[in-house]
Amino acid sequence: MIKDQLSAYIKRTVEITDDELIHVLSFFKTLKPQKNELLLSEGQTSQRSFFVGTGCLRIYFKDENGQDSTRYIAFENMFATALVSFITGQPSLEYIQAIEPSELLYITHEDFNSLRKTVPAWEKFYCKYLEKAYVNTASRLLSFTTMDATERYKQLLSKNQTVVMRLPNKIVASYLNISQETLSRLKSKI
Amino acid sequence: MIKDQLSAYIKRTVEITDDELIHVLSFFKTLKPQKNELLLSEGQTSQRSFFVGTGCLRIYFKDENGQDSTRYIAFENMFATALVSFITGQPSLEYIQAIEPSELLYITHEDFNSLRKTVPAWEKFYCKYLEKAYVNTASRLLSFTTMDATERYKQLLSKNQTVVMRLPNKIVASYLNISQETLSRLKSKI
Repeated sequence: MIKDQLSAYIKRTVEITDDELIHVLSFFKTLKPQKNELLLSEGQTSQRSFFVGTGCLRIYFKDENGQDSTRYIAFENMFATALVSFITGQPSLEYIQAIEPSELLYITHEDFNSLRKTVPAWEKFYCKYLEKAYVNTASRLLSFTTMDATERYKQLLSKNQTVVMRLPNKIVASYLNISQETLSRLKSKI
Repeated sequence: MIKDQLSAYIKRTVEITDDELIHVLSFFKTLKPQKNELLLSEGQTSQRSFFVGTGCLRIYFKDENGQDSTRYIAFENMFATALVSFITGQPSLEYIQAIEPSELLYITHEDFNSLRKTVPAWEKFYCKYLEKAYVNTASRLLSFTTMDATERYKQLLSKNQTVVMRLPNKIVASYLNISQETLSRLKSKI
């Protein structure tokens, strides 16, 4: 059951009473997008945060030549949203896409924020959510400013091999911000 | 008075009672680093968060060739720390340096976190702190994965011109992750 997965995730993340947990879970709704379905496009405001029960989401943006750059991949038991827009309420520069048929739970921005006011554990949960997102994004920034493509690929293999094993080359390449040709060369070399 | 600056900053950021504010401020201590003084080096754990009263801090890391890459610049009325290490407690990959003679306030990681438990407004303050840090870092990641050097320079001029006007070329170049020669060429062109 996907709600059991979410429940376990929240309990691993913060201390929360059973009553608070039941209350929090009651705000989550189910969504079953198909493969490649877009859940958010550039220019829309990010109004939902998604929890992946099965399947996989990716967050990406497009450069001015229409080329994808993948910022984040969420597999089972991970949260994902276009977080800058979720925080600021400004139109998103990012897209959210299901890259496999998925079963998700989502909570709206409005419910998420009203829970922060009424359930102190949910405010702490949000802090943990932001901490993870910050650490992840800062480590990607570090890799793009100090590593070349080979080093980034090696790092991905050691830290998050599932991305390479489970996803099509096109998406792995866009996650490393390199061409598919460069990725094929790296795969044959390493 | 630097404590007045910090007090105003906190009140702009969250709702907080006068008593809570006085309590929070009592944990901050003064530090007056000289120009170029290092407040944290790679490998140390980030144990303090700094508020800039006057002067300027930069957060940077070094690539394997010993080249600086500046991640963040904090001028007056901004907080700064090596945030990944502050969050995780792991040794920092980042350095913290005063790039002008500065007057700072700092709070230790231990006091920061114990205040989160006792003052609910401080937990909210930490959320805001993380939100800002996330938005900033995500927008830098976006610029490094979708923009070339010219676009990054133009964006910096429009969003944060003070960096270009106030700081030496060497630091501006390392903030844009380009060589000083490329920066000079961009400056003469634009």
